[in-house]
Amino acid sequence: MSKKWVYLFEEGNAKMRDLLGGKGANLAEMTNIGLPVPPGFTITTEACNEYSSTGVFPEGMMDQVQEQLAKVEEKMGKKLGDPGNPLLVSVRSGAKFSMPGMMDTVLNLGLNEESVKGLIALTQNERFVYDAYRRFIMMFSDIVLSEDTPELKKGNFEAIFDELKEELGVKGDTEVNAAGMKDLVGRFKAYFKKVTGSDFPTDPMEQLKLAIEAVFKSWNNKRAIDYRNFHKISHTLGTAVNVQTMVFGNMGDDSGTGVAFTRDVATGEKVIYGEFLMNAQGEDVVAGVRTPVKIAELARQNQAIYDEFLRIANLLEDHYKDVQDIEFTIEKGRLFILQCRAGKRTAAAAVKIAVDMVNEGTITKETAIARVEPAQINQLLLPRFDNKDKEAAVKAGRLLAKGLNASPGAATGIAAFDADIAEEWGLEGKRVVLVRPETNPDDVHGMLASKGILTARGGATSHAAVVARGLGLPCVAGCETIRVNEESRLFTVDGKTLKEGENISIDGTTGEVFAGIIATIEPNVSENMELSQLLAWADELKTLGVWANADYPRDARKAIEFGAKGIGLCRTEHMFMEQERLPIVQEMILAETPEARKTALDQLLPFQRSDFKGIFEAMGSYPVVIRLIDPPLHEFLPSHDELLEEVTRLEATGGDAQELAEKKKMLAAVNSMREFNPMLGLRGCRLGLMMPGIIEMQVRAILEAACECKKAGIDVHPKIMIPLIGHVNELKATRSYLEPVAKQVQKEQGITVDYKFGTMIEIPRAALTADEVAREAEFFSFGTNDLTQTTFGYSRDDAEGKFLLKYVEDKVLPVNPFQTLDRDGVGKLVSWAVKAGREANPELEVGICGEHGGDPESIQFCHEVGLNYVSCSPFRVPIARLAAAQAAIASQGPADK
Amino acid sequence: MSKKWVYLFEEGNAKMRDLLGGKGANLAEMTNIGLPVPPGFTITTEACNEYSSTGVFPEGMMDQVQEQLAKVEEKMGKKLGDPGNPLLVSVRSGAKFSMPGMMDTVLNLGLNEESVKGLIALTQNERFVYDAYRRFIMMFSDIVLSEDTPELKKGNFEAIFDELKEELGVKGDTEVNAAGMKDLVGRFKAYFKKVTGSDFPTDPMEQLKLAIEAVFKSWNNKRAIDYRNFHKISHTLGTAVNVQTMVFGNMGDDSGTGVAFTRDVATGEKVIYGEFLMNAQGEDVVAGVRTPVKIAELARQNQAIYDEFLRIANLLEDHYKDVQDIEFTIEKGRLFILQCRAGKRTAAAAVKIAVDMVNEGTITKETAIARVEPAQINQLLLPRFDNKDKEAAVKAGRLLAKGLNASPGAATGIAAFDADIAEEWGLEGKRVVLVRPETNPDDVHGMLASKGILTARGGATSHAAVVARGLGLPCVAGCETIRVNEESRLFTVDGKTLKEGENISIDGTTGEVFAGIIATIEPNVSENMELSQLLAWADELKTLGVWANADYPRDARKAIEFGAKGIGLCRTEHMFMEQERLPIVQEMILAETPEARKTALDQLLPFQRSDFKGIFEAMGSYPVVIRLIDPPLHEFLPSHDELLEEVTRLEATGGDAQELAEKKKMLAAVNSMREFNPMLGLRGCRLGLMMPGIIEMQVRAILEAACECKKAGIDVHPKIMIPLIGHVNELKATRSYLEPVAKQVQKEQGITVDYKFGTMIEIPRAALTADEVAREAEFFSFGTNDLTQTTFGYSRDDAEGKFLLKYVEDKVLPVNPFQTLDRDGVGKLVSWAVKAGREANPELEVGICGEHGGDPESIQFCHEVGLNYVSCSPFRVPIARLAAAQAAIASQGPADK
Repeated sequence: MSKKWVYLFEEGNAKMRDLLGGKGANLAEMTNIGLPVPPGFTITTEACNEYSSTGVFPEGMMDQVQEQLAKVEEKMGKKLGDPGNPLLVSVRSGAKFSMPGMMDTVLNLGLNEESVKGLIALTQNERFVYDAYRRFIMMFSDIVLSEDTPELKKGNFEAIFDELKEELGVKGDTEVNAAGMKDLVGRFKAYFKKVTGSDFPTDPMEQLKLAIEAVFKSWNNKRAIDYRNFHKISHTLGTAVNVQTMVFGNMGDDSGTGVAFTRDVATGEKVIYGEFLMNAQGEDVVAGVRTPVKIAELARQNQAIYDEFLRIANLLEDHYKDVQDIEFTIEKGRLFILQCRAGKRTAAAAVKIAVDMVNEGTITKETAIARVEPAQINQLLLPRFDNKDKEAAVKAGRLLAKGLNASPGAATGIAAFDADIAEEWGLEGKRVVLVRPETNPDDVHGMLASKGILTARGGATSHAAVVARGLGLPCVAGCETIRVNEESRLFTVDGKTLKEGENISIDGTTGEVFAGIIATIEPNVSENMELSQLLAWADELKTLGVWANADYPRDARKAIEFGAKGIGLCRTEHMFMEQERLPIVQEMILAETPEARKTALDQLLPFQRSDFKGIFEAMGSYPVVIRLIDPPLHEFLPSHDELLEEVTRLEATGGDAQELAEKKKMLAAVNSMREFNPMLGLRGCRLGLMMPGIIEMQVRAILEAACECKKAGIDVHPKIMIPLIGHVNELKATRSYLEPVAKQVQKEQGITVDYKFGTMIEIPRAALTADEVAREAEFFSFGTNDLTQTTFGYSRDDAEGKFLLKYVEDKVLPVNPFQTLDRDGVGKLVSWAVKAGREANPELEVGICGEHGGDPESIQFCHEVGLNYVSCSPFRVPIARLAAAQAAIASQGPADK
Repeated sequence: MSKKWVYLFEEGNAKMRDLLGGKGANLAEMTNIGLPVPPGFTITTEACNEYSSTGVFPEGMMDQVQEQLAKVEEKMGKKLGDPGNPLLVSVRSGAKFSMPGMMDTVLNLGLNEESVKGLIALTQNERFVYDAYRRFIMMFSDIVLSEDTPELKKGNFEAIFDELKEELGVKGDTEVNAAGMKDLVGRFKAYFKKVTGSDFPTDPMEQLKLAIEAVFKSWNNKRAIDYRNFHKISHTLGTAVNVQTMVFGNMGDDSGTGVAFTRDVATGEKVIYGEFLMNAQGEDVVAGVRTPVKIAELARQNQAIYDEFLRIANLLEDHYKDVQDIEFTIEKGRLFILQCRAGKRTAAAAVKIAVDMVNEGTITKETAIARVEPAQINQLLLPRFDNKDKEAAVKAGRLLAKGLNASPGAATGIAAFDADIAEEWGLEGKRVVLVRPETNPDDVHGMLASKGILTARGGATSHAAVVARGLGLPCVAGCETIRVNEESRLFTVDGKTLKEGENISIDGTTGEVFAGIIATIEPNVSENMELSQLLAWADELKTLGVWANADYPRDARKAIEFGAKGIGLCRTEHMFMEQERLPIVQEMILAETPEARKTALDQLLPFQRSDFKGIFEAMGSYPVVIRLIDPPLHEFLPSHDELLEEVTRLEATGGDAQELAEKKKMLAAVNSMREFNPMLGLRGCRLGLMMPGIIEMQVRAILEAACECKKAGIDVHPKIMIPLIGHVNELKATRSYLEPVAKQVQKEQGITVDYKFGTMIEIPRAALTADEVAREAEFFSFGTNDLTQTTFGYSRDDAEGKFLLKYVEDKVLPVNPFQTLDRDGVGKLVSWAVKAGREANPELEVGICGEHGGDPESIQFCHEVGLNYVSCSPFRVPIARLAAAQAAIASQGPADK
């Protein structure tokens, strides 16, 4: 007896991928769990390998094919080539791994002049049948035979069809009627004969044999080999061949087709959800020519089929333990399942279904967590535009422009063109959207009073974007098509004008800007019990801590509300930018004597102390990482260009001499601090070392605030973070200034504070020398924004607009490295630094505070390299909690189903 | 018999460092080669270790001390403590490695009331003797005894001396006469007794025993232990003790002291060179109280001593095989050698001596090469100011300012305040120094006509600095104290004014700026036969190739003249900046249609082709690496600030409408290209990918030039270098644009060119992913300027002035990483990239073209990591050749002497 080369679907199962290929194994699995899959069989990969080495079919293989085919025919009550009730089959390749470059599907195999007649009788649709026939001839010629006879390539048949259409005076395929299609079949056959010298194969067994051989041969065609070489797939796996019965939903009123989900994929409710059409093919449902009806209607039309479908739906959800998206066809009163797969669902449904299924006992918490896309969570946390209203606005031409989606969420309100008016209107209780060419520290008070920000210039790390994300305010930045006219208080775009005081709506998630108001859906997180439940489970499972970046007490409170367990980055410079402080900060910067500088710093101290106290109070006993001043000082001074314009104007017009002198003095000061590349200039610890007074004041403020809190019974744990370290000596030198201050304050207050000193790792050199740095630091926090900038040599502000987005579009870069951490480059530095740092200092605590801390894929990486925590914007904390749990689950191997 | 604990100097040799310590072994060596070293002995490190573990001297040690001392006394004809002819000794510690923190020297041990008298009789100098005695008491108390009795610390004795001086009404020590010194000795002894309860030890053997014990103890004092811990020196080595006879050159007219070199260290000539003084101590020669006489004079005064000295000098040079700097003392007609060491010499002498000694058969070529500091070579290659004339200028107050030493060498001429006048005067044959606030591409034609450049702003990578170094022009940049007034055509500094047309001198090696002309010494390299010989030997020995960075044919010729074997970096953008091309370049940049851009590029093509042809012709069959355009395009446009001023002025004054419109248009264009951090912006390959037309034109120009050269019989080897790669896909994409152009040109010309494509490695990510990049590149060239900028996160232009130099001064950084390659950070990336690159592509050629390619220490690193070549400014090629040879020699182990 020869080896078994051919398996009926019911003879296999999901685990037999090696022998039956991925597709064959799945068809077997579905068959075996009792689904009415159109019957068929799979020829094994071993048969393919045998063919590859010998060039002929293995002995007995075609006998087994005929044997199994007979069983299929019996099941279907049809016979291949039967003029009365012809069986048609599809032939498909199916290797262990899905593999483009191999043979595609041949449908409707078994058609010839005889069976065509039978099919017409059955479907009463001559056009459909001839259409199927001409497609079959073309497909078969192209896919099965054109490797040896290039004249049989698809294009040649299409040319014949085009010729016919021209003769008929029609343009589209659909305009060709039954007679035309029949004519076309004739022409195709004639062409086939002309090219090959033989008739198109009419014997269905001959057709089948040729198709099987073509699949075998396709395993070793050039594209397939290249693909396997590239993806490092073994050439010895071979491919299986799947031969499956064709079924038709358009064989009369006892036939039909439809699609349904096992639960409502919009809301997550546990009800069957879908639609169908009787006497129709799948294309008809998709094409929208006829309107499908609700699945419930099927019960009225055919209770038995409906009941059967319900049974299958439950079976499927039970088997795959997830919502299923099921395609079905009814052929002459017989239900067939053509395909089933996990159903796509909305964010809300995803969360509800996952939690429900755990509660129903169907899946584990791990599976529930793995099922929900972290990015989806975002949708549940932010206000968003009502889709219908938005679509209406687009149709009405109210979509004005598209900028950079700098901070997600939707905002509506009246446009304000400067910060003062925004603040004024905001205080009056009006909803305001601040519109600026770009923002700077002077605008912060207006931003605080607004519901959203729109700027014409600046990238995803521009002032507007960074502040907006920090505040959780929607922001569209770098919207370069709008022309803001500050004097006339309006902007124009494409000939349209939007004036101050008029309504505007911006979508920070998409970057869209609309005229007028769009209805907005406000989220209600705390009432979303399923989400809270899912995140609680996530917290049980994750090993990474999730902290938040927060500069203000209210951000800190928001972070706590969203589940953060610490502050991973509190930027102190935003505090400097507040309106009442900025003049003192400027005084400090411009001071000409150490005494004058000291006086200004002394004035800033109480402000900073109360800032920190507020944050400590909000965070209680959670750790708070406070970063010492980072940006270059000129960011706190007036704009160079504006000063230059004013000075030039005053000089040209002989303006007020005193004003000119003052402006000139300021311009000189700004000039002296101006830098060619401020990103790589005098900032971070460099600034601290050149001007230690500022950081000494900050450390004093931190320790004094901590002492006050401890007196009030709050067990604070401040961590003082020194930015932009590149050489360990910078850290040593900075600590040598700061430790005495910290000790002094504790002595003055008579209180001991549990404080730590650590550093950002955001300069490649710090990562490369992490062992040395770790000996001087109690913690590391990866500043992956700057680390990405320096590792790639990209200034984010310049790069995103000028080439980075184009790079991503052109696939020069796989992703935007500012959104998802670049594993091959930046990631190499991070994992090296974690390893070397921990080896040098086993007590070292390591986290991340760049924006990647809120990106699920990057969080996966952070888990893999063993960070202690990720820190992200408060609004991304829930996403990070979920992603961290998923990472923990993934690292324990594949989840159960 | 007990172990041998004490060795006479003649019993040891240079190899016995473990047992005798470094100092003891050297004293032994000098003694054994026949030098009249003042006799003495060494107590071994083993004795110290024995003492450390037992707390008492090893058995028999002091007996051996007495025994060896007797031999010393016999040799000297003196006895320790002998009132008639007292032997005095010094006691010094001496471990295997020189080690601060251990016991210092005790001189004049053996003095007491008796021996003092004898010494006075011998020297006839009572003051000298009592001065020596009071010093001995203080030194002995402080060094030997104060560890146990802190009251014996030096400060207490100094206070007593101060008291005495006050009583005497004098200020300086030298004003105290013999009687005073004698008085002081009495007071010191009284104090000693008061504090210790005992008399100051008078027994010389007792003094010696205490001193030896103090040396042993000092091995384990805290500072010594800390030092060893820090430097990872074993604590079990122990220290030796050296006891050596004191000799005096002031014992009458048959005594004396002097210093001499075995060759002339100014010129290298082979003549004894030095001076001496009779009846004097070493201090007298140094202090300049009496004028020493030439060493030849000694022959007249004492022929025997002179002959003996000559014999010793020859012996020493022969033994150490190098010029020796010898200190000697004649005590009562007896010659003693106190110290000898390698003699410091000028650059010219260093080269001449090294070459002479090889020719004399004294040293090998390897040793000759190792002897010459590469940095010294520089002095022989550049014009320099005559030192005397420069000193005179300083005294005359003509030193105006000091800026950044941006490009070495001295230049003098008349000051020109703009490029046009500089060019005009230059063409008239005048020597011109161009003075600008800063330079930009518009100034290049003026720079070409000048002898030197002075700018008020900009760092070591400013336009002025880079262009000047490329041209080998002296340049002082960033001279911020001078105020350039372009309108009045002058600059002011510290109240002084220098007007256009007045003489000025600048020293690019030191950064100094002088009013008036300073006499200049011009080098003559080709006539320096010794240098040529030395470099020829270097070429035989080095394994690293030495190439040059050259942008113009004349630089290429200079490079060849200096011995370069290829061009490692030809920057194409400088070619764009030449006056006649700049307008076309601007047209190309500002083009509003692809056609207009194409037209401009077509105009640039012949220029570029002739540029490359010139370089190929100069280089012949040597390889030429041409870097495609690198800087951001706005560098080719007018200054933003100037445009803004002009537009504001025209608007304020209602100026010419057409001019205003044009300026506004240009300002808008400049604004649209302006970047926050141009260093990290749209440049290098990013620019090429966004605007492929430019690099396609460049590649066409390179290949066309190559074809023309091949037709003319020149076997050219162009290497096309793509800058600023960060991701391998950038390289792939760029090559996909450029390869077809290269193929097309060859097809058009019917000629095959041996060209290669490679990349700069100047972005950390490129180094981190060097394996991937190497698969797409035929060569790597490390652009360590940019790689240092990104690895440290330093913008060189901003950093050097604002914090970097201060960092180096404060030892936050050990060296300026832009001068010497940072091994720990940047170096780690480089060595990683070389290794990974070569593993992925064994054919990969790897070089360096950053400025580090001309820095000897960095060249050593390049040799170690196995680069194929270094490339540097033509003027540093000789330095690099020498340094490369030294690196090759060093890697083969220690050179012979």
